[in-house]
Amino acid sequence: MHMGLDNVDIAASSLADANFGREAQALLNWLAAFGADHDGGVTRPVYSKAWRAAQTALCEKMKAYGMEPRFDRVGNLFGRVTGRLHPRRRVVTGSHIDTVERGGRYDGALGIVAGMLAVHYLTSRFGPPRLTMEVVSFCEEEGSRFPLGFWGSTYVARSQTDDFSLTIPDVQDAAGTRLLDAMRQMGLPSHADDSDRDEIAAFVELHVEQGMRLEEAQCPIGIVEQIVGQRRYLVDVRGESNHAGTTPMDRRRDPMHGAASMIRCALELARRRQDGIVATVGRLQVAPNVSNVIPERIRFTLDVRHWDEAILDAYCEEVLEAFRRIAAQHRLAVSHALWLDQRPVAMHRRIIQHIESACRAQQADYLFMPSWAGHDAQIMAQHVPTGLIFVPSRHGISHSPEEYTNPADLDVGVRVLAATLYRLAYCEEEP
Amino acid sequence: MHMGLDNVDIAASSLADANFGREAQALLNWLAAFGADHDGGVTRPVYSKAWRAAQTALCEKMKAYGMEPRFDRVGNLFGRVTGRLHPRRRVVTGSHIDTVERGGRYDGALGIVAGMLAVHYLTSRFGPPRLTMEVVSFCEEEGSRFPLGFWGSTYVARSQTDDFSLTIPDVQDAAGTRLLDAMRQMGLPSHADDSDRDEIAAFVELHVEQGMRLEEAQCPIGIVEQIVGQRRYLVDVRGESNHAGTTPMDRRRDPMHGAASMIRCALELARRRQDGIVATVGRLQVAPNVSNVIPERIRFTLDVRHWDEAILDAYCEEVLEAFRRIAAQHRLAVSHALWLDQRPVAMHRRIIQHIESACRAQQADYLFMPSWAGHDAQIMAQHVPTGLIFVPSRHGISHSPEEYTNPADLDVGVRVLAATLYRLAYCEEEP
Repeated sequence: MHMGLDNVDIAASSLADANFGREAQALLNWLAAFGADHDGGVTRPVYSKAWRAAQTALCEKMKAYGMEPRFDRVGNLFGRVTGRLHPRRRVVTGSHIDTVERGGRYDGALGIVAGMLAVHYLTSRFGPPRLTMEVVSFCEEEGSRFPLGFWGSTYVARSQTDDFSLTIPDVQDAAGTRLLDAMRQMGLPSHADDSDRDEIAAFVELHVEQGMRLEEAQCPIGIVEQIVGQRRYLVDVRGESNHAGTTPMDRRRDPMHGAASMIRCALELARRRQDGIVATVGRLQVAPNVSNVIPERIRFTLDVRHWDEAILDAYCEEVLEAFRRIAAQHRLAVSHALWLDQRPVAMHRRIIQHIESACRAQQADYLFMPSWAGHDAQIMAQHVPTGLIFVPSRHGISHSPEEYTNPADLDVGVRVLAATLYRLAYCEEEP
Repeated sequence: MHMGLDNVDIAASSLADANFGREAQALLNWLAAFGADHDGGVTRPVYSKAWRAAQTALCEKMKAYGMEPRFDRVGNLFGRVTGRLHPRRRVVTGSHIDTVERGGRYDGALGIVAGMLAVHYLTSRFGPPRLTMEVVSFCEEEGSRFPLGFWGSTYVARSQTDDFSLTIPDVQDAAGTRLLDAMRQMGLPSHADDSDRDEIAAFVELHVEQGMRLEEAQCPIGIVEQIVGQRRYLVDVRGESNHAGTTPMDRRRDPMHGAASMIRCALELARRRQDGIVATVGRLQVAPNVSNVIPERIRFTLDVRHWDEAILDAYCEEVLEAFRRIAAQHRLAVSHALWLDQRPVAMHRRIIQHIESACRAQQADYLFMPSWAGHDAQIMAQHVPTGLIFVPSRHGISHSPEEYTNPADLDVGVRVLAATLYRLAYCEEEP
């Protein structure tokens, strides 16, 4: 027995008796105890003791919430409710368990907690789903311990392409510990047979926005259409160091003059285009950095983001051409290195429609928006139909002990997630 | 017996038999042994062992060159040849014995060495002068050990205003040693009775240019007309730190954008004015200085120099007004602190004329020029008729082991100094 798509929304009435806000907050606070800092923040780097304690505790919590837990080879944790009709097709929701140093209680953790509440509610209320439902706690997303990010979701996504090989990148943390050794201290990689894993039919992630747009619009839900592409350049401007007094202006090859013109040009252009592109120069270093010496060299970073690759291309081309022109004017040498290049990733149209329908059914206001930060969803989206739901971040703050989302918004978030999972796991015709 | 001004130049013939270049270089190399670095540089901070060894050795050398040496209370060393007619009026020449860390062999030292050679030559050739001649080795000019500069010449200049009090500034070096304690380790301040010192009728300093103008003009002598005024500002631009992705361009209060516009504006304006003003932004600090975070605060220095106070005023007013306008445009807070403010100092017209006449008599090419760096002459000039003579610096390099002036230029420098001292101490009517 299943209902057609048009008449199957969990009615406002059927979720109206639930209020997930307080329970979500209680679970987030419980989880924040693992790796708690003295000031209310959370530091839970991948493969640390705090990380292991959190994953182990979550494993037990999943059992209590009626799920069957399982770790994969690299330490991703899945809590499963097996489907009645299509047990080998999984609808997965969740996010990551690791945090940046002195991070908050919501980033990553909320997606896991919300998934547990939603799956538990759905199975309690409607019984077993048609497709299998799983809540995932990805082992690593932030890249804050090792110079790699999305390690957990990348492993899962790759398995969807039948690539079950396990290649551990040879990277080290700040203390010089190699990734493989850090894993071994956790008893990883394990002998779990991930090649036996079932197909992921859909992935849905709930996350805090980490921006101010929802808060300012007083809107509880953001439906992400694209995760922006990011390019990060290191720009190196070299001139000639000289005496600040004895070198006439017209004899100078001053990289400070050139770099200031370049930075102003790059930021002005981003502002003037009004196509949503954002550009940031967050880091700048001067050599030798002495007040009465014309610098020899300026290095600065340029971070550029947009959801449309063509716009990224156009902006970056124009800026880099301007840099060359400015360098020539000032008789400077300029070079740049593109050290991060993430392409924009679109969320799946069908999942977006399900989220929108869920919002309407829950009478929840929503905005379509891009995600300006990276998420596990951008990795998953490259292999399976994926959606990303945002709830507001107070003052847009994240990666900080000040991270906060109020219980009313948490409640709406969990209800919209539950309604979306219901459509995917209980109602949808097999694609 | 003395000759009138118009016919008293030491004829080219009378100095033609002398060649001071090699001897000057030998003395500079000898002096560089006190505080010698392994790489050819010299580190001789005031009141250090190397400094004491240099002053003590110079004291002996002055005796060998026919001068009567004397230390004042703070450690300035004077070598005297007493005048026949006006023994209580002194024509003083010299420079400073201290160096910056890893400094060169010429900065300061050349003025002392050239003075000794010139005074020795004049007394050997023409007998005792009418006025007393003295060579001074000032104890401190660079300000590289303690946060004070011109300590030696300031003490001497002040004594010309009958202020014989001795106030030791309560400053410390990087190791936490107080100035007074550093002096005590040298047996200073001494009981020398400086109140008994004779009047300074004129001061003439020979120094390396520390710029490229003489070298490029292939001219051995610069006659300094003014020592430029210097203003150094610390500019503080404060905005709002934020996420590089989630903060739209039009919502930013980005101090990097503002600071880049300010710096470009300040340097463009200095270049465009073409009135000789020089402006340098040599030091810049970003907080928090992370590539994917819009900065909260930028601080940068602005070093401005010109010989005309009115031009300094006009430039600084225009720039600071522009900073306020740019800050308002970007919704930033800007403030500035003027942490160094040295007014321009003119050299004495009569001394300049004597130097010019000396150049002509020696058939030495010369340029009139400002000094873009500070010198003891700027302190002395505020109290006594003062002149400053430059010789070329190879490639304009100074404060470096690479400092170099070739023997031919050293020779011309000493000859012009000698001829100038001759006019001042042997020929000039008592002013």
